[in-house]
Amino acid sequence: MLNKEVRGKLEKIVGRENLLDSQQDLIVYSYDATPDYQALPDAVIKPRHKEDVAEIVKVCNEYKVPVVPRGSATNLCAGTTPLEGGLVMLFNYMKDIIEIDEENLTVTVQPGVITLDMIKAVEEKGLFYPPDPSSMKISTIGGNINECSGGLRGLKYGVTRDYVIGIEFVMPDGSIVKTGGKLAKDVAGYDLTRLMVGSEGTLGIITEATLKLIPVPETKKTMLALYDSLEAAGNTVSKIISNRIIPATLEFLDQPTIQVVEDFANIGLPTEAGAILLIEQDGPEEVVERDIQRMAEICEETNALSVQIAQSPEEGEALTSARRSALSALARLKPTTILEDATVPRSKIAEMVKAIEEIADKYNVKICTFGHAGDGNLHPTCMTDARNRDEMQRVEQAFEDIFAKAIDMGGTITGEHGVGVMKSPYLSWKVGEAGVEAMRAIKQAFDPNNIMNPGKVFAKDARKRVVVQR
Amino acid sequence: MLNKEVRGKLEKIVGRENLLDSQQDLIVYSYDATPDYQALPDAVIKPRHKEDVAEIVKVCNEYKVPVVPRGSATNLCAGTTPLEGGLVMLFNYMKDIIEIDEENLTVTVQPGVITLDMIKAVEEKGLFYPPDPSSMKISTIGGNINECSGGLRGLKYGVTRDYVIGIEFVMPDGSIVKTGGKLAKDVAGYDLTRLMVGSEGTLGIITEATLKLIPVPETKKTMLALYDSLEAAGNTVSKIISNRIIPATLEFLDQPTIQVVEDFANIGLPTEAGAILLIEQDGPEEVVERDIQRMAEICEETNALSVQIAQSPEEGEALTSARRSALSALARLKPTTILEDATVPRSKIAEMVKAIEEIADKYNVKICTFGHAGDGNLHPTCMTDARNRDEMQRVEQAFEDIFAKAIDMGGTITGEHGVGVMKSPYLSWKVGEAGVEAMRAIKQAFDPNNIMNPGKVFAKDARKRVVVQR
Repeated sequence: MLNKEVRGKLEKIVGRENLLDSQQDLIVYSYDATPDYQALPDAVIKPRHKEDVAEIVKVCNEYKVPVVPRGSATNLCAGTTPLEGGLVMLFNYMKDIIEIDEENLTVTVQPGVITLDMIKAVEEKGLFYPPDPSSMKISTIGGNINECSGGLRGLKYGVTRDYVIGIEFVMPDGSIVKTGGKLAKDVAGYDLTRLMVGSEGTLGIITEATLKLIPVPETKKTMLALYDSLEAAGNTVSKIISNRIIPATLEFLDQPTIQVVEDFANIGLPTEAGAILLIEQDGPEEVVERDIQRMAEICEETNALSVQIAQSPEEGEALTSARRSALSALARLKPTTILEDATVPRSKIAEMVKAIEEIADKYNVKICTFGHAGDGNLHPTCMTDARNRDEMQRVEQAFEDIFAKAIDMGGTITGEHGVGVMKSPYLSWKVGEAGVEAMRAIKQAFDPNNIMNPGKVFAKDARKRVVVQR
Repeated sequence: MLNKEVRGKLEKIVGRENLLDSQQDLIVYSYDATPDYQALPDAVIKPRHKEDVAEIVKVCNEYKVPVVPRGSATNLCAGTTPLEGGLVMLFNYMKDIIEIDEENLTVTVQPGVITLDMIKAVEEKGLFYPPDPSSMKISTIGGNINECSGGLRGLKYGVTRDYVIGIEFVMPDGSIVKTGGKLAKDVAGYDLTRLMVGSEGTLGIITEATLKLIPVPETKKTMLALYDSLEAAGNTVSKIISNRIIPATLEFLDQPTIQVVEDFANIGLPTEAGAILLIEQDGPEEVVERDIQRMAEICEETNALSVQIAQSPEEGEALTSARRSALSALARLKPTTILEDATVPRSKIAEMVKAIEEIADKYNVKICTFGHAGDGNLHPTCMTDARNRDEMQRVEQAFEDIFAKAIDMGGTITGEHGVGVMKSPYLSWKVGEAGVEAMRAIKQAFDPNNIMNPGKVFAKDARKRVVVQR
């Protein structure tokens, strides 16, 4: 619980109505989309503007009260659970699209704006913001920036970091820093903009951002190819790339996922197929037409069982929904769904999926895998039950093995979900002890009192779901 | 001069033949492409591999000897002058292209490889590395990464930071950190990769990098449009963008630059024109053809005096050479050429060029301006003589005014050259005192003994060419 003095100071900043601490409020903000990491905050606070944020942070820094900035909490790394109590900060009042600049192709937003709302607003002007995390219907831009969200279009268009060109943020001492701007080029000092992207709320609080936009692609086409094995699908992926075609989307579902999606959505997927590739290309019409035809040929040359090109945008949407509904479909099966994002070089996809299958067998857990074949970003997803501690222990072990395997293959422990609490014990596997120390030095330099989202990123402060005894 | 003990330890690491300290050697490595910042190092060292680099850095850290990593020293911010003596580190032995990975579309290189050599090597495989700094014929990739080099293709393709996906670097304590990899997506902790890009050798020494490649565009077309004023050219730029066309190159020359280039190159430029736009589009043939035609129409609609579309690649090259030779042409005129890179939002280009003309008049100095109209990155270039201290003082004042004006317009003090010594007094104008403090905190955390390229980025340690009394 906040002490009276702190409470009084915070109320003075935001007003009593914007500092919540009923039991109900605390429970509502005690968890995010990551299963099994619940922790109660001491209070929930709603600043109205950046000056409020700065004042709140100053109080927190003085009294060493943790602050956890929270958008819609759709993250999958337990990045917004208030592990050490303190304040959960909401951005309900800071969700304006401040400006769409059609001459400089930028949009300037507050952190609380819903990703899809912003995407729709810029599309009305013929502009395009490519990052499309699966949570975009409810996620906020602030959350996307803090986690450096990815999505289905990463291969061709990159991820959130590639579109953030300016940030305003509040440092842990309450000072306000503004980086970048409506600028395609800016090398004035260290790249604080990209340092903030993906820093998971541990270095400061983002209060505004300027994002780069590009023209909306003229058209888009979708196709679906079926295979008897993931190896065959992997061959298609390799051959597409070696033909120097970069599709907008290149997604896969493995056999168990196909089964589950079909049971859920009844869209006529052939549940006997060993793998599905969902392929999209966007751009000028002639190019899309040519690329789609060529990719269809490549699918056939690499032994696809069948290839279906959508004949209309609606049919394209229907095909895409098979992929988009994967998580919802899987989440129906068991009380707890753990979706991970181990990532490998694109060329290792098939090998990695095979390894995941073997690991699932070894620990006797059920893992379905789908994800972004084009950029090597896999989503091994485990259907389990958090109440079954024995199974949870095996799940934890299986994911440890999966992360280790990804690293072996030149990959990473997290492609787009972030480290948070969930991956912090494994961070040194990817960046080494020296890398962790470099990151910790930055954290310490920015936030000596460790008030900004403490317990995240760095393992010493973190806990595992289950402590595995080996 | 290095003391005997340090000298002995360094010789033991690299061998006597790789530690140079004759007067001649010291003079050769006492300056870079930035006029008027010469300073002698104590010695010049040539490591053979990353282990050498790590051992050297450990000795330097122990004895507090500065280390200045140096590629070809083509930078324009005095980024590689050994201001505080110490070691200049060369990468003559570390210039391998380690691997071109055609499946994952990456190239892995050592820092000493010449940019153009690498570009040619990947183009032989049908792959494309877009950043094309004007110095690419002699610059090194290590230098490009340290300065986050830009180039003519920034508008469409971005800059060096957008292509660096993995870095191996030696920390100031001698530990080796490896970030990223052949991965389109990686969010394992803070983005050390992009922090290192543009850090100007002040945080560590890059020993290897993995760069993202894309397929080579199928074709390219070039055109040149003449205007009676830069405002008119600016209108064309705005209209191209508002028509949602993103050309590969969109460069301008102002009237004084046109005159000088024509005097130098005799390529038939109409010296009476007020401005020239050089426009290139690349990509699939149909698209290039369509975009070029549409842009030619736009040029005419916005009152171009004439529009010339190159009918062959050779003719295209000839047109491009007008822009590419600008610096060489200008540099002939006077003993000293100072080329800056103040950058503004694209929509402010014409206004900014006008402001630069007024500032040049005010201080009675000669400034020609050319640069990247598409991304707002201007190159106001002053022809002067470093021996004329009175004029140099006026030049310094003029550039101060230019930087201030760029900031007023939402721009930055440096779009692609970096801060180095040259811009360090102005860094806080762009990022504020709080921003400088945040950067300084990172520097202090990484390099507590301030051995890594000291005197750069941070003004407290830096000097101006001429101290202006106002």
